[in-house]
Amino acid sequence: MNKNLLDTIKKLSDVEGFKDVCHQQNENNPMPSVEVLSEIVQLIRAILFPGYFGNAAVNSKTMLYHIGVNVDKLHALLFMQIKAGLCFETTKESVACSEIDRVSKEKASEFVSLLPSIREKLHTDVVAAYNGDPAAKSFGEVIFCYPSIRAISNYRIANALLHLGVPLIPRIITEMAHSETGIDIHPGATIGDYFTIDHGTGVVIGETAIIGKNVKMYQGVTLGAKSFPLDADGNPIKGIARHPRIGNDVVIYSNSTILGTITVGDGAVIGGNIWVDSDVAPGAKLVQRK
Amino acid sequence: MNKNLLDTIKKLSDVEGFKDVCHQQNENNPMPSVEVLSEIVQLIRAILFPGYFGNAAVNSKTMLYHIGVNVDKLHALLFMQIKAGLCFETTKESVACSEIDRVSKEKASEFVSLLPSIREKLHTDVVAAYNGDPAAKSFGEVIFCYPSIRAISNYRIANALLHLGVPLIPRIITEMAHSETGIDIHPGATIGDYFTIDHGTGVVIGETAIIGKNVKMYQGVTLGAKSFPLDADGNPIKGIARHPRIGNDVVIYSNSTILGTITVGDGAVIGGNIWVDSDVAPGAKLVQRK
Amino acid sequence: MNKNLLDTIKKLSDVEGFKDVCHQQNENNPMPSVEVLSEIVQLIRAILFPGYFGNAAVNSKTMLYHIGVNVDKLHALLFMQIKAGLCFETTKESVACSEIDRVSKEKASEFVSLLPSIREKLHTDVVAAYNGDPAAKSFGEVIFCYPSIRAISNYRIANALLHLGVPLIPRIITEMAHSETGIDIHPGATIGDYFTIDHGTGVVIGETAIIGKNVKMYQGVTLGAKSFPLDADGNPIKGIARHPRIGNDVVIYSNSTILGTITVGDGAVIGGNIWVDSDVAPGAKLVQRK
Amino acid sequence: MNKNLLDTIKKLSDVEGFKDVCHQQNENNPMPSVEVLSEIVQLIRAILFPGYFGNAAVNSKTMLYHIGVNVDKLHALLFMQIKAGLCFETTKESVACSEIDRVSKEKASEFVSLLPSIREKLHTDVVAAYNGDPAAKSFGEVIFCYPSIRAISNYRIANALLHLGVPLIPRIITEMAHSETGIDIHPGATIGDYFTIDHGTGVVIGETAIIGKNVKMYQGVTLGAKSFPLDADGNPIKGIARHPRIGNDVVIYSNSTILGTITVGDGAVIGGNIWVDSDVAPGAKLVQRK
Amino acid sequence: MNKNLLDTIKKLSDVEGFKDVCHQQNENNPMPSVEVLSEIVQLIRAILFPGYFGNAAVNSKTMLYHIGVNVDKLHALLFMQIKAGLCFETTKESVACSEIDRVSKEKASEFVSLLPSIREKLHTDVVAAYNGDPAAKSFGEVIFCYPSIRAISNYRIANALLHLGVPLIPRIITEMAHSETGIDIHPGATIGDYFTIDHGTGVVIGETAIIGKNVKMYQGVTLGAKSFPLDADGNPIKGIARHPRIGNDVVIYSNSTILGTITVGDGAVIGGNIWVDSDVAPGAKLVQRK
Amino acid sequence: MNKNLLDTIKKLSDVEGFKDVCHQQNENNPMPSVEVLSEIVQLIRAILFPGYFGNAAVNSKTMLYHIGVNVDKLHALLFMQIKAGLCFETTKESVACSEIDRVSKEKASEFVSLLPSIREKLHTDVVAAYNGDPAAKSFGEVIFCYPSIRAISNYRIANALLHLGVPLIPRIITEMAHSETGIDIHPGATIGDYFTIDHGTGVVIGETAIIGKNVKMYQGVTLGAKSFPLDADGNPIKGIARHPRIGNDVVIYSNSTILGTITVGDGAVIGGNIWVDSDVAPGAKLVQRK
Repeated sequence: MNKNLLDTIKKLSDVEGFKDVCHQQNENNPMPSVEVLSEIVQLIRAILFPGYFGNAAVNSKTMLYHIGVNVDKLHALLFMQIKAGLCFETTKESVACSEIDRVSKEKASEFVSLLPSIREKLHTDVVAAYNGDPAAKSFGEVIFCYPSIRAISNYRIANALLHLGVPLIPRIITEMAHSETGIDIHPGATIGDYFTIDHGTGVVIGETAIIGKNVKMYQGVTLGAKSFPLDADGNPIKGIARHPRIGNDVVIYSNSTILGTITVGDGAVIGGNIWVDSDVAPGAKLVQRK
Repeated sequence: MNKNLLDTIKKLSDVEGFKDVCHQQNENNPMPSVEVLSEIVQLIRAILFPGYFGNAAVNSKTMLYHIGVNVDKLHALLFMQIKAGLCFETTKESVACSEIDRVSKEKASEFVSLLPSIREKLHTDVVAAYNGDPAAKSFGEVIFCYPSIRAISNYRIANALLHLGVPLIPRIITEMAHSETGIDIHPGATIGDYFTIDHGTGVVIGETAIIGKNVKMYQGVTLGAKSFPLDADGNPIKGIARHPRIGNDVVIYSNSTILGTITVGDGAVIGGNIWVDSDVAPGAKLVQRK
Repeated sequence: MNKNLLDTIKKLSDVEGFKDVCHQQNENNPMPSVEVLSEIVQLIRAILFPGYFGNAAVNSKTMLYHIGVNVDKLHALLFMQIKAGLCFETTKESVACSEIDRVSKEKASEFVSLLPSIREKLHTDVVAAYNGDPAAKSFGEVIFCYPSIRAISNYRIANALLHLGVPLIPRIITEMAHSETGIDIHPGATIGDYFTIDHGTGVVIGETAIIGKNVKMYQGVTLGAKSFPLDADGNPIKGIARHPRIGNDVVIYSNSTILGTITVGDGAVIGGNIWVDSDVAPGAKLVQRK
Repeated sequence: MNKNLLDTIKKLSDVEGFKDVCHQQNENNPMPSVEVLSEIVQLIRAILFPGYFGNAAVNSKTMLYHIGVNVDKLHALLFMQIKAGLCFETTKESVACSEIDRVSKEKASEFVSLLPSIREKLHTDVVAAYNGDPAAKSFGEVIFCYPSIRAISNYRIANALLHLGVPLIPRIITEMAHSETGIDIHPGATIGDYFTIDHGTGVVIGETAIIGKNVKMYQGVTLGAKSFPLDADGNPIKGIARHPRIGNDVVIYSNSTILGTITVGDGAVIGGNIWVDSDVAPGAKLVQRK
Repeated sequence: MNKNLLDTIKKLSDVEGFKDVCHQQNENNPMPSVEVLSEIVQLIRAILFPGYFGNAAVNSKTMLYHIGVNVDKLHALLFMQIKAGLCFETTKESVACSEIDRVSKEKASEFVSLLPSIREKLHTDVVAAYNGDPAAKSFGEVIFCYPSIRAISNYRIANALLHLGVPLIPRIITEMAHSETGIDIHPGATIGDYFTIDHGTGVVIGETAIIGKNVKMYQGVTLGAKSFPLDADGNPIKGIARHPRIGNDVVIYSNSTILGTITVGDGAVIGGNIWVDSDVAPGAKLVQRK
Repeated sequence: MNKNLLDTIKKLSDVEGFKDVCHQQNENNPMPSVEVLSEIVQLIRAILFPGYFGNAAVNSKTMLYHIGVNVDKLHALLFMQIKAGLCFETTKESVACSEIDRVSKEKASEFVSLLPSIREKLHTDVVAAYNGDPAAKSFGEVIFCYPSIRAISNYRIANALLHLGVPLIPRIITEMAHSETGIDIHPGATIGDYFTIDHGTGVVIGETAIIGKNVKMYQGVTLGAKSFPLDADGNPIKGIARHPRIGNDVVIYSNSTILGTITVGDGAVIGGNIWVDSDVAPGAKLVQRK
């Protein structure tokens, strides 16, 4: 180890240098863990789609045991990650440790009670994917192989956690799916039943987007913000509505971009490679000009 | 564990609730495994590109041993995954276990005998990638680092398995490459020699697409279906031709979308960000209008 | 093992068959390893963003120890990978082993001494991502979850290694980020401070692109080559400038394609889904025609 | 790879050379696996001593789920290992695959039904260890830390499997404990309730030994064979009784050796470092002569 | 899953059946972990014998960093295991969580401050092993390979923890060494400097044994209890002195057994395979009678 | 991290404190690795007992490939460990790196060429174990389960390496078996064919012991040194003969101790728990006096 390395170590350890890029977790509190969150998502998939994920030999006689153990593990792991999310955001020492524990346990328990309805919603998404893709051979193939089911599962889990007031964790869960599938759905988006995305790479669905029932989209579709108002300091104002509202039974073909707080009416069809920044009437069919 | 969790466990274990989203594998039959299929793809890469993948110290004196062991392992693993694919699709108990074993072993053996010709094809793809990219420094860099080689390898493997009548497994193999590279090639597509994709994220090549020799495409290119005929129940008819036929020596620039059962003639050049849904004459050069 | 398999093993072991697709590493030299390079990137992230990555319990009292150990490990691992990169490219046996060792160790040490300035640059990128995204809740969320920070980190690391004359390794590092995030930045590109990419999937930034300060881009943006001159044999001439030069304070919206050695002036705004292949004036605002 | 290595490879691959030391498993049959058997022993410990082994958070509300899942997994793994044991011993191809499957599954199921009585027996062993060791602080410490409990658990499992007619597997299970604890109990030995071994390293209990209730022994005690009758070829006759029969309430101190088909009467005490090869009367106290 | 299995699951889940063999950890409290304790022992070895264990490239320039990080990790892991030990023994809910945290952290910190003196003691043990074994080639070989050093290290660590009032954990640590080496030293024993054990398998040193300086023993030596007083219920009284006191400069040859609260005087030599249950005069030489 | 920890870190990092217990490996040289040596032993077992260890599906058609690959890997790993052993012992910088490389590679190659004769010897040991144990069911059970075969295999490997002049590595290999089986055979011992040890825990065979053909011993047998001459400084003189010479066809029963440079004649039988320190005539039968 030469002088150069020793000098660099000193520079990198200088408080002035690292203070803005260093995280100060309160001692003994857990950090969110991508590995554990990935395990959590796998447990949820094993609960929601038994036989496909987790123990493949599960059947109606042993279902109770497997669901019971998976829910037990899920609750324990999720409690810790929710706590980790709350601690990550909390800078003040003032919140009592026991209070965070109680709240985290409650939120984990509430999330578990939402699993039956999440399963129902995902069931509709599987139906939509199968019906909408001539290449799909069976429900099983869709559940087991289709990246869109993985991305929508993570979104529906993350969305439920966000509505329970869990910080950070929802975003990590959707980013995991983003990395695996190229589909980037913000946990804050609102998406109806029977939702399907074909191929999916490059899809972006923004934080305040609202999507109706039975909507289908293809790869590269963006539901984005057109522009966003700045505050007095010239920085974007956080959290206000800035994404499209999509009606029921809408189809959006590949690589089209729909921007701003516009409304796309029920039954509209948006062709591929189109830029849309104003309202689209119900039943309208937009195609790229030649 | 509070009452809430116990109640949710009961709900989730109710047969009515899970019957549509639960897989019933015949007991003792293997399930397809993404981990094992990933190992299979790595074994094939070690066989096809020795020295780059697998044992780096292989040389002409020890090649026979390493190829022998890798083929032996590949055959054993592939046999089980082919069997898993066949069992996944088979709902009837009537097929005799010994019959599935025999068929799976045969198909695994046939696949192995196709490896020399797969290697020849992939060699042409490496040549095309090297020649077509001014940033490429050597064949080695292309084989070792380029995502397109990974995606095309998985496609050529999956395509061979599909033609041997193996269900499900081919799709899992191409989805693995899709996740890693953002390139989504359906195993059913037909693709000639000297094929190359630059950058690649967002490329989609549909099930019935046919691509000639020496074709090059860039990121975001879609060879998709324009629309598909519905059956009496309003569902898409599965398996009929619905994607483009691309000739030899064609170049398709980034983010262009080519749709439907059209033909793009030999030597045509399709510019970037273009929407094409009618035939393109041989040698034609399409560019986006300003 | 039937005759078919034995025959295939022989075919695959035939020197004529594998000579063009087989790598011949000089015995005892290390091969580049994606696993080790991934560990290297994680070590660098633990050094640059302490508390977020690596040991979460690090604090100002223990910072020196953790930085010291991480730098020590990084130097040792990087030395071996730099040597592996140099050996991969070197076909001649003539370079003395001790010489490669000396050079590799020097380059590893020089890279370490660049870490403080890489940290400063990445700090500006974090600020830009936070300020530019209304959905961003805190610096911490940006550092911990945003794929763009991961992709830009890998790029800045790879770019530093490339300027130190390290072959192959930089490309592997940016391809790792490409696979995880869908963002493909060539290590040779030149990118100023305060750079940010929103969503990011499908972004391509070419080898000779030059990007100013405070530039923001969205998913699917390409900074590509329009065409490239061929040499006497009809092959592309390697290494010459062929990508755009982007000024300061430029915004490029989603899925736009900017091609060739053109200049986009300071403060310009390029709308989404646009194809640009000629210079853009400073302050200009390009939008897609309706 | 030099000529020396190539020649050695050829020698080692010569059929004459390896035929006596090479195992020929019928293709596709599983081999016994020490790793899986170790997992099986851990599952059994989690079933028999819940809260100490396996999931520590198990409680009376969730016990059913955890026992259910562990029994389900145990049955599946044990079935395969029993089958592996049967195949290992079977040299003839004539036994139908389906017959071995049926028998193995039956034996695995029978073993599971013995678990409640194995738990009862082990409970008595824990009581004996606690009562007999002044250094023992609690039942919990005994179950969690004492090597004798580990060795006796493995023995009681192995003994049950042996009585079900499972070959090879029982021996592997007791050898696992032998390696961990230095206590070598042959699966064929017969051992009563409330059995305890203190320290234990070097204890050997032979195949045909019979031990009563409430027996305690210390490290280094051997219950061995004195000599064994030879058959016509001068080889030992396999399987006949050749080890001691120990009564109830006997204590045997460290490093004593008890040999042959003798009887040690109820309540006898054998001092340390003693060699015993004739019957010991009930209540007798043997000590080493000075 | 047949009726047999379902019935067994019910039986095993019956509260009456498992209540005596089931551990009830207070929810959210950690359980002691053999894996983590093994990691702790490895960290301590890396701190005490740098260069041999842990990072081999440590040198005087980087020592501070490596010691700093290892101590930091050790303290964090040890804190949790000490807490786990305290929780394991505590049945009452009444101890406040924050109080256990404070106490555990204090004990972990106190243990760390004992490391320099533990290192000094172990150094004397290494010297004794090297001097006493004609087969020993170097200090390095002794530290790196000799099982006695491993067993004595674990004992000295466990003994220090025991004196700090940590329950259970010390016993687990000595049992880890017992399993690896066959040497069973109770954490409560008192052992002077320059202690060495040759070969070691079967050595047993009891809870209240006291050993002077510069003592050497061989394999199979027992320092045990002769008998122990029973309480009114006929159970052994826990915790009273019942093992030998060995003076300085004593040698005890293989497989000898020394029992009860006797004294072996300074400089005595006990031959092999001897049973000793009365005082031995200083300088005496006991040999087995022929 | 409190003041106490910081102070302890300083103390532990003080050069005076660690200089005697710290290993200084020349930078970039490998350290011996117990993990790699364990892998090496497993490779050798897969080569010597194919079908039992390593790939179970090996058969006469694929034997050449598997032996070839295993020998190739073995040679590469062993080369590095031999080099590590040589570097561990070498304190002077003066030995040229290329010279150590050459010597290590030669020794690794010579060791490989000894494998056929090691296999022959081990075959005789298997025969002896099977013939000598009435509980042994088959050669397969002996090879797959018997700890004595594991201990003798490691010894025969270590002995061959020792005779090739490899330092340290042989001792680590026999200590690995010592830990697993409780059998401690020094690599320097000389042991004839058809050697078997029953049960084995506690067996010790010293560095200069010489054992004839067809010798059998039981658990707890010691072939030790009686005393050893001291040099002028009072330290044992290293490396001189100090252990027994055992003839052919000798049986030694459990826990007996044979000490010093005595000779036990051909065909002698030593009973259990006996202390022997003078010559034993050929054919003599020693038993413990009552």
